[in-house]
Amino acid sequence: MSRRPDPSRRSEQSRQAILAAAADLCVEVGFAATTIEAIAARAGVGKQTIYRWWPSKAAVLLEQMQRVREASADFPDTGDLRADLLAQTTALEGLLATNDGAIWRGLLIAAQSDDVAADGVRALLERAVTDAKQRLAKAQASGELRADADLDMVVEIIYGPLYHAWLLRVRPLPPGYMKEILTLVFDGLKPATGGDAR
Amino acid sequence: MSRRPDPSRRSEQSRQAILAAAADLCVEVGFAATTIEAIAARAGVGKQTIYRWWPSKAAVLLEQMQRVREASADFPDTGDLRADLLAQTTALEGLLATNDGAIWRGLLIAAQSDDVAADGVRALLERAVTDAKQRLAKAQASGELRADADLDMVVEIIYGPLYHAWLLRVRPLPPGYMKEILTLVFDGLKPATGGDAR
Repeated sequence: MSRRPDPSRRSEQSRQAILAAAADLCVEVGFAATTIEAIAARAGVGKQTIYRWWPSKAAVLLEQMQRVREASADFPDTGDLRADLLAQTTALEGLLATNDGAIWRGLLIAAQSDDVAADGVRALLERAVTDAKQRLAKAQASGELRADADLDMVVEIIYGPLYHAWLLRVRPLPPGYMKEILTLVFDGLKPATGGDAR
Repeated sequence: MSRRPDPSRRSEQSRQAILAAAADLCVEVGFAATTIEAIAARAGVGKQTIYRWWPSKAAVLLEQMQRVREASADFPDTGDLRADLLAQTTALEGLLATNDGAIWRGLLIAAQSDDVAADGVRALLERAVTDAKQRLAKAQASGELRADADLDMVVEIIYGPLYHAWLLRVRPLPPGYMKEILTLVFDGLKPATGGDAR
């Protein structure tokens, strides 16, 4: 066995420390006030170490979200669409409330003015939308979801309320939020005795 | 008649020029790159003139959005909920695509790190939500909307898809977007022949 330190292992430790420091700062002071200087100080590395791997703070945070995405479960598929959507959206609601949610918020802000963040956010969102649409298409084929619904719109109807409440911070989400949203969007907003029956 | 210039009129002209310059810059270069210096240069005033009235660029943009809000129509109430929601959301969709939409996007970003922007955005959103809930409550009373639906959730189901698509820029909105969204959320995502009938 060699006693020399493994440079790739040390690199990965530094990368982990930088990612963790960026995440903590984003939670503590917000994306706007997070600086490369502060990330370097918190991680115990020099600024140049960060710039060797990433061009900007947005790029650091993007790698953190990509790692979260890689580690997350596939879209659930038990054969019960409502149960799978509830499981997936409840997991997302939980994630949005963690440090990773603060990072995701920072990236969505950065995406408005930073091309690296915009491309990375777009890729993450497109992959999430594609996964959801695949599950929804299977449910259309099995008759659990109306066949004439546009799947991009179904994604927006299911995830839009959660993002609306979370991004705009209109109110804290009540317990059981997504369960009730799913009931309303699947049953529809028309009165049960109204609509066609009138 | 006095030939002296009316100072209050000149002030209002300067204010208008500053508001217009801030709006144009927000559209052209985005909120992050809009500076008080650039607003002053574009409006043909000194920086101190801006700082006499507003503490920050976010405060300038907030006044512009408050003026847009004051000038906008009341929530429509023709007695037909679906028609009124379509009219109101179509007007909002149109506004989001204009310069005022770019300002609103800038304010939503600023609200994440600037307390003045956060308070102003919260007040504007709360007023919009209150107006929508008043109209929805009337529709519940008249039997056009299911009586057991939580009105905050109904607002999020109707406006969430539009904000999700607009803020996250996942895709350009297709023509007739809100009409189809309203059909889906009122009729529900369950298959017409499925659900209770199975």
